[in-house]
Amino acid sequence: MKVFATAAVLRKGSFNRKLINLAANKMREDGHEVDLADFAEFDMPLYNGDIEKTPDGALELARRISEADACVISIPEYNYSLPGILKNAIDWLSRMDDVPVAGRTMSLISASPSLVGGNRGLWQARIPLECMGAWLYPGMFSLAMAAKAFNDDGTLVDPALEERLVYVLRDYLTVTAAHNAR
Amino acid sequence: MKVFATAAVLRKGSFNRKLINLAANKMREDGHEVDLADFAEFDMPLYNGDIEKTPDGALELARRISEADACVISIPEYNYSLPGILKNAIDWLSRMDDVPVAGRTMSLISASPSLVGGNRGLWQARIPLECMGAWLYPGMFSLAMAAKAFNDDGTLVDPALEERLVYVLRDYLTVTAAHNAR
Amino acid sequence: MKVFATAAVLRKGSFNRKLINLAANKMREDGHEVDLADFAEFDMPLYNGDIEKTPDGALELARRISEADACVISIPEYNYSLPGILKNAIDWLSRMDDVPVAGRTMSLISASPSLVGGNRGLWQARIPLECMGAWLYPGMFSLAMAAKAFNDDGTLVDPALEERLVYVLRDYLTVTAAHNAR
Amino acid sequence: MKVFATAAVLRKGSFNRKLINLAANKMREDGHEVDLADFAEFDMPLYNGDIEKTPDGALELARRISEADACVISIPEYNYSLPGILKNAIDWLSRMDDVPVAGRTMSLISASPSLVGGNRGLWQARIPLECMGAWLYPGMFSLAMAAKAFNDDGTLVDPALEERLVYVLRDYLTVTAAHNAR
Repeated sequence: MKVFATAAVLRKGSFNRKLINLAANKMREDGHEVDLADFAEFDMPLYNGDIEKTPDGALELARRISEADACVISIPEYNYSLPGILKNAIDWLSRMDDVPVAGRTMSLISASPSLVGGNRGLWQARIPLECMGAWLYPGMFSLAMAAKAFNDDGTLVDPALEERLVYVLRDYLTVTAAHNAR
Repeated sequence: MKVFATAAVLRKGSFNRKLINLAANKMREDGHEVDLADFAEFDMPLYNGDIEKTPDGALELARRISEADACVISIPEYNYSLPGILKNAIDWLSRMDDVPVAGRTMSLISASPSLVGGNRGLWQARIPLECMGAWLYPGMFSLAMAAKAFNDDGTLVDPALEERLVYVLRDYLTVTAAHNAR
Repeated sequence: MKVFATAAVLRKGSFNRKLINLAANKMREDGHEVDLADFAEFDMPLYNGDIEKTPDGALELARRISEADACVISIPEYNYSLPGILKNAIDWLSRMDDVPVAGRTMSLISASPSLVGGNRGLWQARIPLECMGAWLYPGMFSLAMAAKAFNDDGTLVDPALEERLVYVLRDYLTVTAAHNAR
Repeated sequence: MKVFATAAVLRKGSFNRKLINLAANKMREDGHEVDLADFAEFDMPLYNGDIEKTPDGALELARRISEADACVISIPEYNYSLPGILKNAIDWLSRMDDVPVAGRTMSLISASPSLVGGNRGLWQARIPLECMGAWLYPGMFSLAMAAKAFNDDGTLVDPALEERLVYVLRDYLTVTAAHNAR
């Protein structure tokens, strides 16, 4: 399958970048083609309903999602909610004639230095995506205490956690293959 | 397919009973077998972690969900949230060794006399169900101003709304068939 | 001030009972009168809109809230949401002519053996209470890893956490005194 | 009292601008000083944790909130959630040493052409604001079917709705005065 993967963050050293890199590697090891994007590729202004032309960055994001069979996003938690940059992108996407996430499956994951691992933010991120018609995978992998979670080679210190990540990704892609073949 | 259908309410004259009855009829017209349950069949006490034996009503609810291929629940909104009786049942279900909703799809619908149609309650009901591992259909049908929405024969006054309900149910069952066949 | 305090749980050995006991002790040390209730005192059936007479347990809960100046509830997290027994009580309260929480302040706290400390459940508990008109204190104290958090005498092993609890309670009661005097 | 008021939207013809204008007029009629801001005054880039200097627009927003005694924001609902531009501003505010909304009261209102009036978005907007320590007024005024709700002079067609708005604002400011005087 072709999987679109990105972390909804601009900071270079973000733990969510590390996590999506690891997820991408694991999916590639399973034989999937992964389009791993830097969210900075989708540059767009703050949403303004008076701007009639959809910005290029939003169109590019829509194109990349549309061309993939599956979509995995790693999302940092800001203030118990989703990042403004992700919601801003959703606001542009939602205005398109053919909303690119409608009817597709998505899987959300998160990493955070906190004990909670960013899980509260994921629950807020689900809402606008489900509102646009996405089927969201229920088992959201959240990596807590991320500052000590990664080895230098990008794998996880705790092999049980890494196995859990692999399980979640495989289960998501299996269901998605069936979903897309309907 | 075999569909389990119920309204999470005890009141006899509830609009959510009317809505699930209509949904059951529509699914039967499409050739599906519907197990339409009265939530009063699942009598159980308030959840108490000290009670070691799972109550019969919770076991019966688990059995009925497990025996079906798909699950449609009509849920009234109480105080912008899900009904206590539904959350209480979820609390019992979640303690079982083999949580019956994990890995299954579910579709939530609602009816309400208000302009909002019970939609806020559905968003709160999703959370514990997704926590237990259910895949929830994104398009939640909410019937607003339900006091004037039904004809005497149980159909909807507005044929466009009834078509929308039929579309949502068919789309849900199509995806579920693919999901279950994986 | 007179403070109503309870844990929304029936299990005898619940960490939320331990936490509300500690909170009650701390408020008493500060000179407040605390009405510490066992939730089992508020026995009531599952909500049924056809029952016209409000159950005695719901009336008693309403009376106890109404007679206090402030209200602190410790709430376990079940399935990332509030307990069914609390939502069921809210469903009965919300039907009363004079909803007892409207215009009052409330403070929610939680304890859990998990790393998250029950915090996700508190965010779901806020919604129906705010819907009924309560002003909820923003800083919700959540005690993570509760199985190892308490000393035998009911105090917390970590003095910094206990100070945080005391701070939150004092700040809540200070604002509540001003709120009530308006 | 001095009230900061704004609509979290850039579109010129937004119903939320109309609603905050009306709210500002009503508060001025009651003798309050209102700092009515256009959200475009708070221009700032998409949040990037690598940018060390807080943008001028975020500093200006923080200053305006800090100088006021109370804060009323009208918030459009985008995809059942808060607008990206508001969340983006919150992300910048939350990183400041002295988070300007902590310990303050806020009142959220909304307008929308839909039957729901933007109310679902307000519930998502509460979360990051409460996370930062704001006390949010529980009664959130939502103006449904906003396309037909305003007279040419900016008042509401339905006098009962306008009375309700005035009641909510007065009640909020009364509690806030007590809150601030503690």
